[in-house]
Amino acid sequence: MSRVYNFSAGPAVLPEEVLKEAQEEMMDYRGCGMSVMEMSHRSKMFQTIIDEAEADLRELMNIPDNYKVLFLQGGAALQFAGVPMNLMKNGVADYIVTGQWAKKAYVEAQKYGKVNKVASSEDETFSYIPDCSDLPIDEDADYVYICMNNTIYGTVFHELPNTKGKTLVADISSCFLSEPLDVTKFGLVYGGVQKNVGPSGVQIVIIREDLIREDLPQWVPTMMSYKVQADNGSMYNTPPCYGIYICGKVFKWIKGLGGLEAMKKRNEEKAAVLYDFLDSSKMFKGTVRKEDRSLMNVPFVTGDKDLDAKFVAEAKEAGFENLKGHRTVGGMRASIYNAMPKEGVEKLVEFMKKFEAENA
Amino acid sequence: MSRVYNFSAGPAVLPEEVLKEAQEEMMDYRGCGMSVMEMSHRSKMFQTIIDEAEADLRELMNIPDNYKVLFLQGGAALQFAGVPMNLMKNGVADYIVTGQWAKKAYVEAQKYGKVNKVASSEDETFSYIPDCSDLPIDEDADYVYICMNNTIYGTVFHELPNTKGKTLVADISSCFLSEPLDVTKFGLVYGGVQKNVGPSGVQIVIIREDLIREDLPQWVPTMMSYKVQADNGSMYNTPPCYGIYICGKVFKWIKGLGGLEAMKKRNEEKAAVLYDFLDSSKMFKGTVRKEDRSLMNVPFVTGDKDLDAKFVAEAKEAGFENLKGHRTVGGMRASIYNAMPKEGVEKLVEFMKKFEAENA
Repeated sequence: MSRVYNFSAGPAVLPEEVLKEAQEEMMDYRGCGMSVMEMSHRSKMFQTIIDEAEADLRELMNIPDNYKVLFLQGGAALQFAGVPMNLMKNGVADYIVTGQWAKKAYVEAQKYGKVNKVASSEDETFSYIPDCSDLPIDEDADYVYICMNNTIYGTVFHELPNTKGKTLVADISSCFLSEPLDVTKFGLVYGGVQKNVGPSGVQIVIIREDLIREDLPQWVPTMMSYKVQADNGSMYNTPPCYGIYICGKVFKWIKGLGGLEAMKKRNEEKAAVLYDFLDSSKMFKGTVRKEDRSLMNVPFVTGDKDLDAKFVAEAKEAGFENLKGHRTVGGMRASIYNAMPKEGVEKLVEFMKKFEAENA
Repeated sequence: MSRVYNFSAGPAVLPEEVLKEAQEEMMDYRGCGMSVMEMSHRSKMFQTIIDEAEADLRELMNIPDNYKVLFLQGGAALQFAGVPMNLMKNGVADYIVTGQWAKKAYVEAQKYGKVNKVASSEDETFSYIPDCSDLPIDEDADYVYICMNNTIYGTVFHELPNTKGKTLVADISSCFLSEPLDVTKFGLVYGGVQKNVGPSGVQIVIIREDLIREDLPQWVPTMMSYKVQADNGSMYNTPPCYGIYICGKVFKWIKGLGGLEAMKKRNEEKAAVLYDFLDSSKMFKGTVRKEDRSLMNVPFVTGDKDLDAKFVAEAKEAGFENLKGHRTVGGMRASIYNAMPKEGVEKLVEFMKKFEAENA
């Protein structure tokens, strides 16, 4: 078996230890005589799996008791509707548009109320985080929305916006569990797990209890009511059991490494290897304003499309997969999530140095 | 490794061959150096997986070209809203209520229009399929809805209702791929895969193209529009990739066994082992009207609650898992989906005979 270095933006690399355990347990989970894929979600065995997953996530993120943790389906894209459906009481929300996913969320929310774009960085291809210290927050805004880490553009909110007392909501898909997060600063955070936590098909919503409403508009599907999902412990219907099981293993893997402080240190060291090289290279350069750089997604370019394409092709040959950048940015992007070993980034930088020397 | 006989109603037993293959490919899918869980859904590798899955399903079910196949998330429960959201033009639908899932679908649809219950078997705990040859179909009905196989109650529509020309819609979750189905008789069939096809978290919708509309009400979430999903090849956002991969393996497993005609024969022989015994036993009896019996779910009782409980407990000890019946029926239920080997049913019947002798 030869594993590649997989820099995919998501679905993305998972810890080898987690995959190995899942492999060992595939035919017979801990002597119960069946695969987790075959377990009734109403069985004690599966209840233990989901309960442990929730408990470990609560411990890792230090989630207060007055927040519910929901394991849902449908991806962030379904929550682009779920958030306004559930949180809009006044029918007003403020969105900060820092990338494609924030923009999609902003557009979807317009189905459900008056939505203000209070800040944007679209003028410079989302290569920076706008100043959010004094935004024109709507008096009636039910919430202020951000996409915390912008997967395509490689930016992250190092400082949270000043919401002037309004509830802050964040899509944290691509920085989930990459470093500590003060959940109490948010009314709701949510994310697809397929970047940093598990296989695609699981969506985690963490919501403060007082925001969970019963009086939703009639046309809200029962499955999309946070109240229904919270009251049923994420099992109003059959949840994505196998995905939740893998997430649970990833939570334990992170705990084993020392939790989110340790993960942050690891991620900072790992990202520094690549950013330091980008800052010293004559050929490759990062596309993001330095102070807004993400620890997770690192877009870079040579400035020459043909050379970019040559790099991506040769990198693939050398075992570095999925380095092609998003079409709206061009060039390359290395997604270096939790499960990407530092060694993978070091080898990538070695390869970039070699490529630069050969193509100078 | 010792595998049990798992009679769970869903998630349920999967073919051992499929699990073994998945186990072998866990760390490195066919030399690509990564797990299917780690693959970008935009990669050629994953595109091949989903394309093959669709092609195999089309071949197995003989799905005509004017039907779209969608791989979605959210379970049947989300489609309880998705179906009326997408198919109601007149705002009217007729529902045939033959069990708990049909009833939930019926209740959910009331959020979206005028919904008529045109037939029901609730008067006798859903133990039969009502006569549907001459129903009071609404002139304006956009569709007539059935739950084809009733998981909890063990009934199945052996004959389709006379819809008087209206579009027929069916939830086929618990009889998916258990026998041939003439798709052309339906406008839309859909089902969660976690009973007969794969792990929970994947929902397959098969819909005739002329029913796919663009002019949906504003509040329909983009993710729930069949038009959007069809136009994007089920990849408007990241699909549940690993689940689709497992479904694909199950499709190939069924093809290898000879397709749906062969599967039907297998299932009939298997179910006969249990039904023949139930019809001859003095202790155990089936709860369903004979002509409406399902090949997939077989509820039965002793007539004595304590004896039922004793049976379930001793069966579990002997390696027969998940035989407890649904609380609304009581007693026992053996779900004997495609992947349950005939041997499992034979051994169960042996065990029942022994129990009957010991407890006569």
